[in-house]
Amino acid sequence: MSELLVVGSVAYDSIRTPHGEVEEEPGGAAIYFSLAASHYSKVNLVGVVGDDFDQNLLNKLQQRGIDLRGLERIEKAKTFRWKGFYESDLEAQTERTDLNVFADFAPCLPEEYRSTPFLFLGNIDPEVQLSVLDQMDGPRMVACDTMNYWIEGKPEQLARVLKQTDIFFLNATEAELMTGKANLIQAAQELRKLGPSIVIIKKGEHGVFMVGREWQFVLPGFPVSIVKDPTGAGDSFGGGFMGYLARSGGTSFSTLKSALVHGNIIASFAVQEFGVKGVSDLESWDLDERYQRFVRLTHFQA
Amino acid sequence: MSELLVVGSVAYDSIRTPHGEVEEEPGGAAIYFSLAASHYSKVNLVGVVGDDFDQNLLNKLQQRGIDLRGLERIEKAKTFRWKGFYESDLEAQTERTDLNVFADFAPCLPEEYRSTPFLFLGNIDPEVQLSVLDQMDGPRMVACDTMNYWIEGKPEQLARVLKQTDIFFLNATEAELMTGKANLIQAAQELRKLGPSIVIIKKGEHGVFMVGREWQFVLPGFPVSIVKDPTGAGDSFGGGFMGYLARSGGTSFSTLKSALVHGNIIASFAVQEFGVKGVSDLESWDLDERYQRFVRLTHFQA
Repeated sequence: MSELLVVGSVAYDSIRTPHGEVEEEPGGAAIYFSLAASHYSKVNLVGVVGDDFDQNLLNKLQQRGIDLRGLERIEKAKTFRWKGFYESDLEAQTERTDLNVFADFAPCLPEEYRSTPFLFLGNIDPEVQLSVLDQMDGPRMVACDTMNYWIEGKPEQLARVLKQTDIFFLNATEAELMTGKANLIQAAQELRKLGPSIVIIKKGEHGVFMVGREWQFVLPGFPVSIVKDPTGAGDSFGGGFMGYLARSGGTSFSTLKSALVHGNIIASFAVQEFGVKGVSDLESWDLDERYQRFVRLTHFQA
Repeated sequence: MSELLVVGSVAYDSIRTPHGEVEEEPGGAAIYFSLAASHYSKVNLVGVVGDDFDQNLLNKLQQRGIDLRGLERIEKAKTFRWKGFYESDLEAQTERTDLNVFADFAPCLPEEYRSTPFLFLGNIDPEVQLSVLDQMDGPRMVACDTMNYWIEGKPEQLARVLKQTDIFFLNATEAELMTGKANLIQAAQELRKLGPSIVIIKKGEHGVFMVGREWQFVLPGFPVSIVKDPTGAGDSFGGGFMGYLARSGGTSFSTLKSALVHGNIIASFAVQEFGVKGVSDLESWDLDERYQRFVRLTHFQA
């Protein structure tokens, strides 16, 4: 089993969906990612919080084998906050963002983290992603996520990140924004030219599309009858995928496919509860059982 | 091999898409459906044309084993015409509809057709669907398609059709319109209460979702790099599905799953060309080859 390093946001989220609302729930990409990945591998977390962040959750992360030496805590300052809502189309609408300690996030990696073989650069400022890459000691596999804000705001820095990226995660809207191609095959081909050998385009409830040099792979979403809260689904997906890769230690096509299924499965748990509960309150048999259900939902006579 | 009867529109379509345009191409649901189904089973077609319909295409249909005794031809009258376009979202926008001979479509089934075991009621006036059902001699399997126009305009007649329907085809928007449920599991459960034991919700490029009494099955769309013309994709899908069922003669879960894959595959050919060319100019090895490609695109370690 290899280790996995994630750098990304740690936040308090206030969320309203058609199924209810929560105020100041602990969240953020790095938290969802770590919790999901911790079902598969040891995780080194890099992020920043204020002195107000939930110690209970941090204890829980540590119990799950998530190393928090890279989580900087700034006294007399507040954790990043996001407030938003979802309507029936399940697209996140932002009402308010308070960056707080995240505004000056300039991570300095603990010495022990630098040789971590699997690296996930969460959706943050590409300049911070570059700084993390510079601090790493030749990771075996670099994955990266981004969003429209950086695609439009820092395209050159993002391009530099992508040149060093093996696996690029983004959603279908972002893929079209970056390439001008609405067709996912065409978009993925364009994106591969920017550096990543593997492009993973997330399609929300419609599943995910993965493209490599001479292969494609596509999965529908795991059907869920009540999506309580889509927050963190993509990050949980990334955590399940990268955690499975790190556990397997390899990147054969067969391993990549299984990793994609594990990401898909854990994302389906994430959306069934508000906040991180869907990914934290899981046992390995829940994942195994849903994996087998997904086989029955999708496999047909070859 | 069982026979299959389809009733539906026969048309001239004028279509504009981002990849070009065509004027007065032969089309219509019954034509797409029959051509797709003819790759699997014998098809009896029920429809109506004017004296202006393309004899070459009719010859081609007959060469493919499609029985046209149920295709009424009205002299000195014109075939149904549809004109529309698609933008990058691939949603059909209607510019003009001339019903012509289709306005008074009141099919009288040839005697030889009435015992056809597999019946597909294409998307037409539910009163016409009811009249066809009345003329049939206890079909073994009734499938039905519809659209928003009938869902809103003739809900009671549609409800009577659905009480006699085994397999209900509709798209995701129509499923939400009929049930008020955006979630496809919830929508399918509501729709099954109306009569059909199997509900098949078409999601366009995102594939298809099939729900029965105690099972669900989901497929992504076959990824196509250039969608020239989405017209007829859903009808071709239905033809591939029903043709495969008729050929198999059964409705086991395993057969239903393979039928869904065949529908999915033939729909992916349909969209690669303007008009019916994508489904008519196909050989069985094209279908077999793409079936195997779809296995490789979707199957993972169980």
